[in-house]
Amino acid sequence: MKSYALGIDLGGTDTKFGLVDNQGHVLRCHSIPTQQYPQIEEYCDTLCAEMKQLVEGYQLQMTDIIGIGCGAPCANFYTGCIEQASNLPWKGIVPLAKLIRERMGLKCTITNDANAAAQGEMIFGSARGMKNFIVITLGTGVGSGIVIDGKLLYGHDGFAGELGHCKIDYSGNGRLCGCGQRGCLETYTSATGVARTAKEIILSTNQPTWLRDLPDIDSITSKDVFDAAEKGDLVAKLIFDYTGHLLGTKLADYVHAFSPETIILFGGLTKAGHWLMNPIRQAMEQNLLPLWKGKIPVSISTLKDSDAAILGAASLVIE
Amino acid sequence: MKSYALGIDLGGTDTKFGLVDNQGHVLRCHSIPTQQYPQIEEYCDTLCAEMKQLVEGYQLQMTDIIGIGCGAPCANFYTGCIEQASNLPWKGIVPLAKLIRERMGLKCTITNDANAAAQGEMIFGSARGMKNFIVITLGTGVGSGIVIDGKLLYGHDGFAGELGHCKIDYSGNGRLCGCGQRGCLETYTSATGVARTAKEIILSTNQPTWLRDLPDIDSITSKDVFDAAEKGDLVAKLIFDYTGHLLGTKLADYVHAFSPETIILFGGLTKAGHWLMNPIRQAMEQNLLPLWKGKIPVSISTLKDSDAAILGAASLVIE
Repeated sequence: MKSYALGIDLGGTDTKFGLVDNQGHVLRCHSIPTQQYPQIEEYCDTLCAEMKQLVEGYQLQMTDIIGIGCGAPCANFYTGCIEQASNLPWKGIVPLAKLIRERMGLKCTITNDANAAAQGEMIFGSARGMKNFIVITLGTGVGSGIVIDGKLLYGHDGFAGELGHCKIDYSGNGRLCGCGQRGCLETYTSATGVARTAKEIILSTNQPTWLRDLPDIDSITSKDVFDAAEKGDLVAKLIFDYTGHLLGTKLADYVHAFSPETIILFGGLTKAGHWLMNPIRQAMEQNLLPLWKGKIPVSISTLKDSDAAILGAASLVIE
Repeated sequence: MKSYALGIDLGGTDTKFGLVDNQGHVLRCHSIPTQQYPQIEEYCDTLCAEMKQLVEGYQLQMTDIIGIGCGAPCANFYTGCIEQASNLPWKGIVPLAKLIRERMGLKCTITNDANAAAQGEMIFGSARGMKNFIVITLGTGVGSGIVIDGKLLYGHDGFAGELGHCKIDYSGNGRLCGCGQRGCLETYTSATGVARTAKEIILSTNQPTWLRDLPDIDSITSKDVFDAAEKGDLVAKLIFDYTGHLLGTKLADYVHAFSPETIILFGGLTKAGHWLMNPIRQAMEQNLLPLWKGKIPVSISTLKDSDAAILGAASLVIE
């Protein structure tokens, strides 16, 4: 039987939201600019009014909607609160789920965006039918959603799964991370990490590369590195080799810890495709214990890019 | 109401087994030499005959026993088999749970020794009432039992929780591990790892140390290092500082991944006490994300040493 839910992808810049059916179709979607609402109440007023319009515009009643799922930074599944999110306008602890519930009269479940992505893969994506798998999100940062026995891993306080802040360099001399630590995986294997690697290599070698001709070395993106690699640029290839080697090496650790059936990569950096995937798979295999060698596929999410975050969020309330 | 179970601690040298009550008392125990039974059937015949004697010697019937739990290397909880254990006499895949069940007429559950230790902590030890915690075993190797939502983490194939084979050195130049990889945590923070560190430091410096006077540098044990530290030996202190620093740094990663309520250390190396625990706690705190700083206790198991492995095994079948 057909059922409907609302999914919210609350990001630092925009909040995207959509009406989703239980077949995994985003039927309608819209967005509002997150930063334009310094007061959380005003933000929720606007968001909920817009979501009601979306539902009505599709000729449905609010009673047709089974619930609302929301992926947001620093969202605590247990408490329904966003806690100390540095890139959102609202400081401290924000009871987001409660505020939405009050305005919509529907149950609302929140979690961080990587967990929402993992739930989306389990309900609508390539992890359908799987009970143990890991989703790694490779965007501005590195996040992760870990599914164990068919359920998202939240741990004692709701914040488990910060694999991006596990270290790939324990020397104390690794790259400085936004979290204050040095050597975190996300300083190397995020889109931002790739840009840092590009800058380091360009400044420390004389190797010819198309990337050197870009107007501003501080504005190089992972997309630039991809474009260069596609043109046969050897430095660009080296940058992805380095990134993939580090990520693959660390993925082997995660296999040893969690014994997943598969690992799914998600987010902007995965557009690098085989330039990144080949070194990832190679390094992971090299570093696996014999019992797991050749057994753990690493793939890129097959969910449609524009829909994935909204689908993932909605899947939190869809069985 | 009082109930009884049998616990088996199957080790490479000896197999210890005992009759346990649901209050956590080991009522009777005994052992047989594992290596003296090249045939698994003969081993099980002897083990089961001895366990029956234990039960009868305590004036109980076999019908009074609720089941048998067994901790063993490379034991697969899902299949009940020991798979490819390199330090046991039986090669390939050994259906241990089935062989014991047939002989005893009781249900038999097996898992690896670190998982048994974690189960023991949950039922009888300092993790009573906790639903999310990690036990790290520091013996000849480094093992781990991870409890999530009140259940042991087994992952897709039954072998999750190999935290000792996660790396603390990703350079490719780390210490060679028995698993074939380089840089695994267990090559540094096991009892054997401490002995390797001692040898490395003694051979690479001229610093005066009592350890230099021992008859054979290749036979130095973690106990020797402890004894030296207790006498005020600065090199011995340095060895524990180094070991604790590496383990604590890695424990921060595990907190980021699992968000446990507590971490419990278990096994021979924990006898080093504060010499090891202080640098562990310091390094872990330094490396934690702010949201976990000061919140995750690291302690040594309070279960009685001689009983812990048998209790842990028996706890697999005790509710």
